[in-house]
Amino acid sequence: MPSEGKQPLFVLVRPQMGENIGAAARAMWNFGLDRMRVVGPRDGWPNEKAVVMASGAGRLLDEAQVSDTLAEALEDTTYVFATTARIRGLTKPVMSPERAMALAAEKLAAGEKVAVLFGPERAGLENEDVARANALITVPVNPDFPSLNLAQCVLLTAYEWRRAQGEISHERMEIARGGDPATGGDIEAWATHLEERLDERGFFFPPEKAANMKTNLRNLWSRMPLTRADVQMLHGALRQLIRGKDN
Amino acid sequence: MPSEGKQPLFVLVRPQMGENIGAAARAMWNFGLDRMRVVGPRDGWPNEKAVVMASGAGRLLDEAQVSDTLAEALEDTTYVFATTARIRGLTKPVMSPERAMALAAEKLAAGEKVAVLFGPERAGLENEDVARANALITVPVNPDFPSLNLAQCVLLTAYEWRRAQGEISHERMEIARGGDPATGGDIEAWATHLEERLDERGFFFPPEKAANMKTNLRNLWSRMPLTRADVQMLHGALRQLIRGKDN
Repeated sequence: MPSEGKQPLFVLVRPQMGENIGAAARAMWNFGLDRMRVVGPRDGWPNEKAVVMASGAGRLLDEAQVSDTLAEALEDTTYVFATTARIRGLTKPVMSPERAMALAAEKLAAGEKVAVLFGPERAGLENEDVARANALITVPVNPDFPSLNLAQCVLLTAYEWRRAQGEISHERMEIARGGDPATGGDIEAWATHLEERLDERGFFFPPEKAANMKTNLRNLWSRMPLTRADVQMLHGALRQLIRGKDN
Repeated sequence: MPSEGKQPLFVLVRPQMGENIGAAARAMWNFGLDRMRVVGPRDGWPNEKAVVMASGAGRLLDEAQVSDTLAEALEDTTYVFATTARIRGLTKPVMSPERAMALAAEKLAAGEKVAVLFGPERAGLENEDVARANALITVPVNPDFPSLNLAQCVLLTAYEWRRAQGEISHERMEIARGGDPATGGDIEAWATHLEERLDERGFFFPPEKAANMKTNLRNLWSRMPLTRADVQMLHGALRQLIRGKDN
């Protein structure tokens, strides 16, 4: 996954627990984001617990730009999103993560420098922080249980960034060995094989219903997304059933 | 958020840590899902650590249907998704969470009973589990760092379920008091006020450039998404500047 391309900065504002900083780094890197800034971390920097938690994403912490104030962290940015669950008396556009990350991608493509702010664990961002943002992001959580933690909020935003890049495979068929689709000929041969063995054993009874029963049986096989390997296995299973227990 | 409506069952298969079961319950309820099933939890049931972690979502654990085998958990389902990072030699459709939850919504609306399987923390689902699923879900993570944990996988899937319900507000304007947009008249009055005070103080100099400077200044204000409260504040600030320090 490209980490060279243009991407939003994720800015953790006054994060408290090192574990959460580490988990946020992991969540970013899960979706290919690796530019973190940290403003006024409560327990100083570097943070040992953050490093332990980040494990495979520790590089993000090593490379994180740390500052005392949010103003410093945003010195070179041109468009800022603030993630917040609560809106507090400020007039401001409020976007879904999906819309926000689509807009971020547009702005980055146009040469802007975009940041996303994430507030401290308990209180979230202060009005003073939010006033520096061009727009707010609110995750459409259950209003009866809107308790996303910091790393979850980072995860969902990073996921929407990944989605905004497109190129996601929405549906494909995983093909195991022999997993290519059975052909009309394969299905025909199998349906005929089964029909003949059943016919020999008097399955299609009474005679006036036989034609309908055969049609329904063929329809069953045609409706199934069978592979060539499936059909081979069915032939084998039928031969073995015919052979019987004692042979 | 409606929990009465049709929704997919989330089935935790052989989960290990109680904390992760609790975190999964929270992640479900964050997006309005509350039907959990648990298959063969390693540490038995009920699980004290799960209850502590679930806190506000503890009801999901109380109401969870617990069984020894996956076959029992799927006894009444008609369509099953399995979340898995690895594909292992089984022919099967593989979908993004987005596509899968859209399909789940369609199937539920058509009266089907849909389940989503989540594997144990370390190893993930076994081939034997996956073979019971109609389709796989794979989150489009960074291939260099595909380390989603159980609750994160549940969170992203539940989020996509929420998105599949539609009704998400993608963009709206939060309006604080006085936050309704300034009218043409408000802008005109402000631009005129500022222009007059600047004119009195000889700002538009040299005279041959004055017209162009006035146009640019008007353009600045028209470009801004100002509110009526903003405009009132600007008028006040200008009056105070004119008054000077010593008055």
